Amino acid sequence: MALKIVITGGAGFLGSSLARELLKRGTAAGPDGKPTEIRELMLVDLVPATVQDPRVRSVVVKELSRSALGAAFGRDTDSVFHLAAVVSAGAEADFDLGMTVNLDGIRNVLETCRTLPRPPRLVFTSSIAAFGGQLPAVVPDGQAVTPTNSYGAQKAIGELLVADFARKGFIDGRALRLPTIVVRPGRPNKAASSFASGIIREPLGGEDAICPISRETKIWILSPRRAVVALMTTHDLPAAAWGPRAALNLNGLTVTVGEMAASLARVAGAKVAARIKWQPDAALQTIVGGWPGEFDTQRARALGFTPDADMDAIIRAHIEDHLPGGVR
Amino acid sequence: MALKIVITGGAGFLGSSLARELLKRGTAAGPDGKPTEIRELMLVDLVPATVQDPRVRSVVVKELSRSALGAAFGRDTDSVFHLAAVVSAGAEADFDLGMTVNLDGIRNVLETCRTLPRPPRLVFTSSIAAFGGQLPAVVPDGQAVTPTNSYGAQKAIGELLVADFARKGFIDGRALRLPTIVVRPGRPNKAASSFASGIIREPLGGEDAICPISRETKIWILSPRRAVVALMTTHDLPAAAWGPRAALNLNGLTVTVGEMAASLARVAGAKVAARIKWQPDAALQTIVGGWPGEFDTQRARALGFTPDADMDAIIRAHIEDHLPGGVR
Repeated sequence: MALKIVITGGAGFLGSSLARELLKRGTAAGPDGKPTEIRELMLVDLVPATVQDPRVRSVVVKELSRSALGAAFGRDTDSVFHLAAVVSAGAEADFDLGMTVNLDGIRNVLETCRTLPRPPRLVFTSSIAAFGGQLPAVVPDGQAVTPTNSYGAQKAIGELLVADFARKGFIDGRALRLPTIVVRPGRPNKAASSFASGIIREPLGGEDAICPISRETKIWILSPRRAVVALMTTHDLPAAAWGPRAALNLNGLTVTVGEMAASLARVAGAKVAARIKWQPDAALQTIVGGWPGEFDTQRARALGFTPDADMDAIIRAHIEDHLPGGVR
Repeated sequence: MALKIVITGGAGFLGSSLARELLKRGTAAGPDGKPTEIRELMLVDLVPATVQDPRVRSVVVKELSRSALGAAFGRDTDSVFHLAAVVSAGAEADFDLGMTVNLDGIRNVLETCRTLPRPPRLVFTSSIAAFGGQLPAVVPDGQAVTPTNSYGAQKAIGELLVADFARKGFIDGRALRLPTIVVRPGRPNKAASSFASGIIREPLGGEDAICPISRETKIWILSPRRAVVALMTTHDLPAAAWGPRAALNLNGLTVTVGEMAASLARVAGAKVAARIKWQPDAALQTIVGGWPGEFDTQRARALGFTPDADMDAIIRAHIEDHLPGGVR
């Protein structure tokens, strides 16, 4: 047998990166837990997927409805990575859209999984946006979620649904709370965390970048490379190792925004780092400053997840992966 | 002005008790926070309400759909107590029914509240069933929920929805995690906690009661009287006092099952207590033993909530309220 894997949000940045790595590796854990050949990688999104490979099938859907998902999953889906989401500022600006995509979306994915002849593996990406407000300086694994935006609330609800569908045996489910992904390639998006990639990416590309957040603000980050590894590791871990608590605080790196700028100067030079323009934005500062900047991720470490070495390594990896012509 | 208050589950035991107390008091906090006359008490349920009063309107609905709720709420609802639910063993036996009533139910209540001209007060009853599995011996206020049954998962999801709808300003919402209510009047129900009332109620009424749970098991309880006071207090507290964390671990009393039996012997005599028949049930023991038996409820105490004095007082109150002819 060989695997059929579905990635929702498969045309997005993280979905595309994950697809490329899965295709490169060629295998993932099968129903018996052993590395099994990937036969088909179905990339479900609002727009056509860009990853090219004979094993890839791009499926364009208008919405994450049960009928659209049912048609895409068919009867033979073995694994699902559910990445499709409306990001934080987007879900905050359009409440109903966030509820539809982020809440009904995961519920419809779960109900569709439940109709399959064999409970599939499901990896659900949640976020540290599940946390906000008054929190311990270092957030432990057992900390209650306290979302202070709708995106975080919808992700936290998704985690509970994944856990309960898994407990019922409808799926083999795992939810992963990703740190802020830095450096995202491409253009800024509506996420409140968009600046964190922008202040590295734009200066490296020869453009100025506005930093609306103070130098002292701690953020909890993970590189795209490590995020993809974490997604694949989460998928492949045995259900018994994962345990009953579906949502995992993934281990990241704590850096201040000022340290990120200093790292950029070290790796790419002071001239590049000077392209960061510091323009405080009180509203964004409140949102980003409300996210926890440091976690004690005992469970993630015990499961074998590893964070990035340091900020310099993250920036060097971004240059390698996305700036073939070097820094401008 | 005078208030229109809706109670979903208004024909149930807790809904009826709450209705009677609200009618007796005659007032509740109005939009300005001041005690305001109750003009109409609408009791929404699957069956007609039993509470008789000129201010009561009984509304029978087939389901908690938006259309049914919209018709019941009208445009002039000031406050909603959302108590309607499928209990723990019921939601476990029929997953889809639990999702529909316990999850879609609160969502439809919230969306209906959102259509009102003024954001209503909403009190949502959640439960300590939101907790399960490996927990600290004494559960603190900031403990992450870890439901180990679908009822608990659905309640925990409801809490997150209430918090986010409140944060958005669609409602003035509060969620209350009730301890196990002891002594419930009436007959046993499908809740795994049903024994906790049964081992007091049935012996007092002259019947034997099976206790499937071991004497050493700690449970976290609250009397019906104090539950009703807590619901009214929750409703009346200013939003600023409640704060952004919607779900409150209400303070209860920690007792072992053995202490409950000893209390029954003290209050009603050894002959009555001998009607408890100890017949361990491993499946029920696993469920009930998985619930936390002790909490550190700093937040509830600071907000002015008070638990029952002791088990003896709980039993005496039950006799007063429900056994006018005395113990048999």
